Amino acid sequence: MKLIENVRDMKEMIQKEKKNGKTIGFVPTMGFLHEGHLSLVREAVKKSECSVVSIFVNPAQFGPEEDFSRYPRDEDRDLRLLDKEGVSYAFVPKPQEMYPRGYRTYVQVQDMENRLCGASRPGHFKGVCTVVLKLFHIVQPDTAIFGQKDAQQAIILKRMIRDLNLDIVLRIMPIVRDKDGLALSSRNAYLGSEQREAAVCLYQSLKQAEQAVKDGERNADLVRSLIQEKIAGEPLARMDYAAVVDSENLKPLETIQPGQTLLALAVFIGETRLIDNMML
Amino acid sequence: MKLIENVRDMKEMIQKEKKNGKTIGFVPTMGFLHEGHLSLVREAVKKSECSVVSIFVNPAQFGPEEDFSRYPRDEDRDLRLLDKEGVSYAFVPKPQEMYPRGYRTYVQVQDMENRLCGASRPGHFKGVCTVVLKLFHIVQPDTAIFGQKDAQQAIILKRMIRDLNLDIVLRIMPIVRDKDGLALSSRNAYLGSEQREAAVCLYQSLKQAEQAVKDGERNADLVRSLIQEKIAGEPLARMDYAAVVDSENLKPLETIQPGQTLLALAVFIGETRLIDNMML
Repeated sequence: MKLIENVRDMKEMIQKEKKNGKTIGFVPTMGFLHEGHLSLVREAVKKSECSVVSIFVNPAQFGPEEDFSRYPRDEDRDLRLLDKEGVSYAFVPKPQEMYPRGYRTYVQVQDMENRLCGASRPGHFKGVCTVVLKLFHIVQPDTAIFGQKDAQQAIILKRMIRDLNLDIVLRIMPIVRDKDGLALSSRNAYLGSEQREAAVCLYQSLKQAEQAVKDGERNADLVRSLIQEKIAGEPLARMDYAAVVDSENLKPLETIQPGQTLLALAVFIGETRLIDNMML
Repeated sequence: MKLIENVRDMKEMIQKEKKNGKTIGFVPTMGFLHEGHLSLVREAVKKSECSVVSIFVNPAQFGPEEDFSRYPRDEDRDLRLLDKEGVSYAFVPKPQEMYPRGYRTYVQVQDMENRLCGASRPGHFKGVCTVVLKLFHIVQPDTAIFGQKDAQQAIILKRMIRDLNLDIVLRIMPIVRDKDGLALSSRNAYLGSEQREAAVCLYQSLKQAEQAVKDGERNADLVRSLIQEKIAGEPLARMDYAAVVDSENLKPLETIQPGQTLLALAVFIGETRLIDNMML
């Protein structure tokens, strides 16, 4: 695996690979890799002739009060893991390489970015879209691989790719969970042991909602309140949002449409904000 | 010359040209071509192995009260002119091809887009950046050629290209003027004959300001007021703005820095808004 730290070198390598007719598979990450990330990485390595994984904790997607500076980082471990998976290139740029002095260009997917997580994290998806578009221009992937864990991100990026006429196939890989069902997340590292136990309420609330829908429930409000009640029953948890939305445009649904409904929630466990979701 | 009306066909052709190692020169226009446009087109034909000219009156860059619907169009004449110049491809998409139902992704170069023309045309440069980025993704040019006439546009696009890590060389061609000095513009077609005569005041005001600077004047306010006085002396003209700004970041200057100062103005002649500028 080649470690690349600046944009120019990365572009040069990509140009060379493309000239040799190689297909490029790309996994953008913020590092502190877990099995969720690695499932994306394996997909890239398996399906593309050249695989690129970026590690970049993107300041533009964190609010001023958020956890940018304390976001967990372990570059050495990440690079060892990627090397072991057979990745071709790890792209690890510094913030000033991605956002040099005078930087001022941003991309927005209007009307989808202020819903769900965007409501509690203003500017978050603008930061995500901007950095992902930049990375796309640098890495020029044929396929980009993201996790279903960040469902809203995947839906917004799909829209951005289509709207901006990019020729990139977006692959969304299923959520990887711990034994008890908690979705893997770098932020799980923030949890104390009691909090870690409490955090399973996100998954359990989704399972409960899913069961209700399997049993025939179609009222979105009722399903949403099932989730809220479950979270309210966990003393260490505080609801941010629970949403039942159209999986194409993220608009709230009144009636659940199996096959195109996304259940999504965000919950604070202490200071740590966790998200989870399920497609119905 | 090949006429292409949809994105998929255009991409296919470009892919073929690129496979054959051809360099792509691109001129985006809104049609109703004049000698100003043709100077860009000639540059593309001369310097690139494959030249693409787009004709697209971009609804996203017009305000609701602006002249989108009455903007002058003459596609047949435009295509004849481009054919005569030896252009390889004319790309003429319909609005619904560029902005299909559900479209919602926009690009902004913050802090540069609300100055000068952006102050009187809110959203204008967001529309420009968005359509140009889309066209860049479709046409994938090595070189894109724009006119100095739209100085702010050129400066903003240069910033966008750099910020978004695009590998596109921006070439800016000088303003083409009528015999009396009026900068060529598709909107000159709106002018009656008296208005047409009055319109020369834009150029004359710039020349007067340039002379003052040549004579040693460095006070930006004073130079700006020379322009304003000249425009005020023309009864058919109404000042929109006159600005003396840094040619890199568009910030207003107090002191003129020869080599990095842009004089720019916009003036209404009747209902018609005209722009002009000069680098000092």
